[in-house]
Amino acid sequence: MPIYKAPVEDVNFLFNDVFQIDRYNNLPGFSDASPDVRDAIIGEAAKFAEEVLQPLNRVGDLEGCVRHDDGRVTTPKGFSEAFRQYTEGGWLGLSAPAEYGGQGLPVTLTQIMSEFLTSANMAFGMYPGLTKGAMAALLVHGSEEQKKLFVPRMIAGDWTGTMNLTEPHCGTDLGLLRTRAVKQADGSYKITGTKIFISAGEHDMAENIIHLVLARIEGAPAGVKGISLFVVPKRTINADGSVGGPNGVSCGSIEHKMGIHGNSTCVMNYDDATGWLVGAENKGMAAMFVMMNEARLGVGVQGLAMSEVAYQNAVAYARERLQGRALTGAKDPDKPADPIIVHPDVRRTLLTIRAFNEAARAMVVWTALKGDIAHRSADEKERQAADDHMGLMTPVLKGVLTDSGFANTVLAQQVFGGHGYIAEHGMEQFVRDARIAMIYEGTNGIQALDLVGRKLPRDGGRAAMAFFAEAGAYAKAHGDSDAMKPYVAPLSTALGHLQQATMWLMQNAMGKPDNAGAGATDYMKLFGLVVFGYMWAQMAKVAQDKIAAGDAAPYLKAKLVTGRFFMEHMLPETSVHLARIQSGAATTMELPAEAF
Amino acid sequence: MPIYKAPVEDVNFLFNDVFQIDRYNNLPGFSDASPDVRDAIIGEAAKFAEEVLQPLNRVGDLEGCVRHDDGRVTTPKGFSEAFRQYTEGGWLGLSAPAEYGGQGLPVTLTQIMSEFLTSANMAFGMYPGLTKGAMAALLVHGSEEQKKLFVPRMIAGDWTGTMNLTEPHCGTDLGLLRTRAVKQADGSYKITGTKIFISAGEHDMAENIIHLVLARIEGAPAGVKGISLFVVPKRTINADGSVGGPNGVSCGSIEHKMGIHGNSTCVMNYDDATGWLVGAENKGMAAMFVMMNEARLGVGVQGLAMSEVAYQNAVAYARERLQGRALTGAKDPDKPADPIIVHPDVRRTLLTIRAFNEAARAMVVWTALKGDIAHRSADEKERQAADDHMGLMTPVLKGVLTDSGFANTVLAQQVFGGHGYIAEHGMEQFVRDARIAMIYEGTNGIQALDLVGRKLPRDGGRAAMAFFAEAGAYAKAHGDSDAMKPYVAPLSTALGHLQQATMWLMQNAMGKPDNAGAGATDYMKLFGLVVFGYMWAQMAKVAQDKIAAGDAAPYLKAKLVTGRFFMEHMLPETSVHLARIQSGAATTMELPAEAF
Repeated sequence: MPIYKAPVEDVNFLFNDVFQIDRYNNLPGFSDASPDVRDAIIGEAAKFAEEVLQPLNRVGDLEGCVRHDDGRVTTPKGFSEAFRQYTEGGWLGLSAPAEYGGQGLPVTLTQIMSEFLTSANMAFGMYPGLTKGAMAALLVHGSEEQKKLFVPRMIAGDWTGTMNLTEPHCGTDLGLLRTRAVKQADGSYKITGTKIFISAGEHDMAENIIHLVLARIEGAPAGVKGISLFVVPKRTINADGSVGGPNGVSCGSIEHKMGIHGNSTCVMNYDDATGWLVGAENKGMAAMFVMMNEARLGVGVQGLAMSEVAYQNAVAYARERLQGRALTGAKDPDKPADPIIVHPDVRRTLLTIRAFNEAARAMVVWTALKGDIAHRSADEKERQAADDHMGLMTPVLKGVLTDSGFANTVLAQQVFGGHGYIAEHGMEQFVRDARIAMIYEGTNGIQALDLVGRKLPRDGGRAAMAFFAEAGAYAKAHGDSDAMKPYVAPLSTALGHLQQATMWLMQNAMGKPDNAGAGATDYMKLFGLVVFGYMWAQMAKVAQDKIAAGDAAPYLKAKLVTGRFFMEHMLPETSVHLARIQSGAATTMELPAEAF
Repeated sequence: MPIYKAPVEDVNFLFNDVFQIDRYNNLPGFSDASPDVRDAIIGEAAKFAEEVLQPLNRVGDLEGCVRHDDGRVTTPKGFSEAFRQYTEGGWLGLSAPAEYGGQGLPVTLTQIMSEFLTSANMAFGMYPGLTKGAMAALLVHGSEEQKKLFVPRMIAGDWTGTMNLTEPHCGTDLGLLRTRAVKQADGSYKITGTKIFISAGEHDMAENIIHLVLARIEGAPAGVKGISLFVVPKRTINADGSVGGPNGVSCGSIEHKMGIHGNSTCVMNYDDATGWLVGAENKGMAAMFVMMNEARLGVGVQGLAMSEVAYQNAVAYARERLQGRALTGAKDPDKPADPIIVHPDVRRTLLTIRAFNEAARAMVVWTALKGDIAHRSADEKERQAADDHMGLMTPVLKGVLTDSGFANTVLAQQVFGGHGYIAEHGMEQFVRDARIAMIYEGTNGIQALDLVGRKLPRDGGRAAMAFFAEAGAYAKAHGDSDAMKPYVAPLSTALGHLQQATMWLMQNAMGKPDNAGAGATDYMKLFGLVVFGYMWAQMAKVAQDKIAAGDAAPYLKAKLVTGRFFMEHMLPETSVHLARIQSGAATTMELPAEAF
C-alpha cells in the first residue's frame, strides 16, 4: 500500500522563511491567517489527506464510477462520506468571500491544501476542485442573484460544480462549438447539445450539480465571438431555493480512461435543459477564462502533488529494498544485501524528483501569493504587477509542473523495478492518474503557445521584463558571496539563456509566427527551469542564513544539497532549449503533411 | 481503432541501401536470404502483423488472461488461433539452425519481424519472444539430447518457453535466490521455490511449456557462483517424446499489471518439480546471460516498435483532426478548421518521434547484423569485432530504445489531446504496454551500469575505441562535403562529447566507482545519441546519393529533413549529458539515506 505524509515542514519553510507571508498582513484575509491559524489549517488538511483520502485512493482506482441504466452515477465506496467530511470541515469555502459563507483566507492556503488532497487521492480532489472553479466563475461574472443562489450552497457542498466546454469535434478550438441556447420568454434559455470529458459531471455526492456550459445563442456570430456562458443546474431550483425536478441534462456514459477512475468523467447530454446566462451575451469565453486560469494553477499543483507522493513512495522503497551492494563496498554487511538507496543511480533519480518538487512548490506558493495580491491589494500598481506575474506564470506553471510531474511518477515507478509495474504497489496508478494533467485545461502545447503568443508580448513584454529584472537583481545582489556562488552562477547563466531566447523570438517570430510555434514548448521549459533556479537560489540563501543563525534542522542541509543537485544536473538543460529555439521552424515546417 | 502499417519501405532502405546486407552472402544463411526471399518474408510478416495480430491488440488488453481455480490460464480470445497461424508460418524457426527444424536465416530478419509483431500486439509478441530466448539458451548450453528433445518442438510451437529468474525478494541481485534443486538418483533434480513475473508462464496455446529455471543445488556456494540452470517442463515427457502428466509446477496467480494484459505474467510455484541441469553445475548465470543478451536486444526492439505504432497513429490523427488555424493563415479555408498537423508544435512532436524511430531501426539492423557476423563468420577477427560491438551496444540499445520508446508513446498520446486519455483510441494502451520494456530484462539503470562498469572497460576499452574510430573516420571522410556538413558537423561535436565523457570516466571513476554510477545513465544516453547521429549521417548520405542518381521517391527527401531535425533538436542534448557526468558523484552521494 502506498504511503503519504503531507510535506508540512517544507510548506512552513516556504510560508514563514522564504516568502514570509506575514508581510502581507495588510491584505484582507491575511491577518486572519495568523501563524497559529495557518498551523492548524495545514495540520488538519494534512491529517484529512493522510487519514481519510489516501486510504480511498486505490479503492477509487479499482472500483471506478458506475453509471446505472437510469443515468445515475455511483462513485467509489467511501467517496461520498469523505466528501461530506470535507465539506463539513469548511474546506470548500476556505478562500471564498465571507459574504457568501466562505472564510476569506488566502488562496495560497487553498492551493497547498489542494496539493495535499491530490497527493492523497487525485480522483477525489477533482470533485471539490471543479466546484471551486465554477464558484470562481460565478463570483466574477455571475449576477448578484446568481452568486447568492449558488455560491453558499456550493461552499456547503450541497451542490457541486462542473465546467462544460469540450464537444466531440471541438476541444482547443472552442469556436467550433455547436451546443445551442434558445432564449425563452422568461429570460431563461433552453440548452441543447453534447459535451464530453466532463469531470464530476454526474455523481452521488451532492443533491444538485451546477453545470457551467458554453453554448451558442441562436443567431450569435460564428466562432469564439458568439459563445455565451450558462449556468444549468442538474435539477431545477424552486423559488424558495429548494431543489425541484430533473432539468433535461443527463450523463450519457462514463468515459473509459487511462486513470483517475474515481472521478466520473461524463458525456453530458443537454436536451432543452433550462439555463441562465452568466455575464453578457457572447462573452462566454472571457467568463470561462476566469475558471480556466484558476483551473490551470490547480492542474499545475496536481503535477507537483503526484510527483511528491511518487517520490515519497520511491524513497520508502529504496530504503527498504535490499538488493546488491554499494559500489564502494557493503554498507550493511550483516544483511544479505544493501538497501538500493546506496546506489548513485537510484539517488540521482530521487534527487531529480525532489529538486523538482521543492522548486515547484516554491513556485506555486510564490504565484498563488501574487494571485492573492492581485485580488486583494489596495495598491493599483501592486495589483497590476501581481496580475502580470500571474498571467505570465500560469502557462509556465501548468505546463512545466504537469510535464515534469508526470515524468517524475515514471522515474519513481522505475525505482521499484518490476514491482513498479504491478498494481498493488500503487506506483502505476500514480503514472496513469498524473498523465491527464498534461492534457486537460489546455494541453501543454497550448500552454506554450499561450506563453509565447499572448503572455510574453502582452504590454510590450512588461511581465517578462519585470521577472528578468527581479531575478537578475537577485543574482547580482548575491553573486559575490562564496556560499551563494554555486547557486547564483548557474542561475545567471540560465537567465542569460532565457533572455537570449526572448530576444531571438522578438527578432524572429514577429513576422514568422511559425518560429514562435516551433520554439514554444522549449521556451516554456526554459522559462520554468529559470524560475526553478531562482526559487532554488532563494531557498538556499534562506537555508544558509538559518544555519548560520544556529538552526541545525536536517532539512536545511538537505535543501542546500538538493539545490546544488538542481544546479549541476537540471539547470544546464537551458542551453539545449535555447539551441532548439534558435534553430527556428524551417526544418519543422518543411515536409508536406502526407510525407509524415 | 488504432492503425498499423509495417514500415517495409524503411526496412528495405536499411537492408538494401544503408547496410547492403547482400555483402554478407558469404555467411551461412545469408545467401538463402536473397532479395526475393527477403521481400517475401518481410511482406508476409507485415501482413500477419497488420491483419492477424493488430486486430487482437485491444481485445487482449480488455480481456487479459484468466487463471482458473485449477491453475489453468486462458489467454484472450483469438490469441491461441493466432499463435497456431504464427507457428504454422514457420516464424519461430526463421533463424534457428536447420538441423533442429529451423530455416537458418539471419537473426537480423527475425529482429525486424519482432518489430512488426510488437507494434501490432506487444502482449502477443512476448509468447514467441520468450520461446526464442529459451531456445537460444538451450542451443548454446544444452546437451545434444536436450537440443534434440526440446528445440524442434519449440520451433513447431507445440511447446513454448519461459525464463524463471526473479523471486519476490530478488530481482537484479540474483545471488540472493532461494529456489533449490536436489539431485536425484537418476541424474534429474527436484526443484522447489517460487518465481515471480514469469511472462508466458502458463497459457492455453501449447501442449507443454518448457521452463528454464535458475536454482541453487543443495550445498552450492552462496551468491551467484552457486546458481545453476535447469529445464523444467510443465508436463513430464515420456521416453518416446510424448507428453505425460503434470510435473509439480503450477501458476499460483496472474500479476495485476499496468499493461501487456494479453500476456500471462505468472507467479510460478515449483514443488518438487523434476528438472534437468542445463550446462554445468553452478554455471547457471553464464547460461542465463545468453538468454538475457538475446532478450535485451529483443526488448530494445519493443521500445522501437511501440514508438513506431504510436507515431503512425499520431500522424493519422494529426492529419484528420480539424482544430484551429495555421499560425500563418488558414490552410484549408473551405473547412471549419485546419488539420492540426499544420501546427509547428505538433510537427515538432511528430518529428521527434520519427527521428528516433528511423535511427533506432538503423541501430537495430546494424547491431543485429553484427550479431549474425559474430555467430556465423569464418574469420575470427571479424567475429571478435562483431562480438565486441554486440557487447557494447546491447545495453545502449536496450536502455535508450526503451526509454525513448516509452517517452514517444507519451508524446504521441499527447497529440490526441483529451482523446489520447480515452481507452477506445488505443494510445493509452501503447503507453501502458511500452512502460514495461524500461524495466524487464534488467532495468535501464542496470543497463547503464553494465555499460560503464563492464562493457566499456572490457579489454582495455577495445569495443568503444573501435566505435569511436569508425564514427570518427566516417565524419572525417564526409566532413568536407557541403551537402553532408549539416549532418557531419553535429556528429563530430557529439562524438567529441562522448570521447570527453569516456576520458573523464577513465580518469575519475577507476578509484571512485560512485562517479561511474552517478554518470552511468547519462553516459548511456549520450552514447545512444551519438550512435543515432552516426546512423543519421549514413542514412543522409545514402539518401543524397540516391537522389543524385535520379531517385525521386518522397521518402528520401523525408529522410534528409528528418535527419536534419535530429541534428538540430536532439543531438545537442549530448552537451548536457557530458556536463552531468563531469559533475561527478559528490552531491548525489552527500545526503544520508534518512535525509531523503
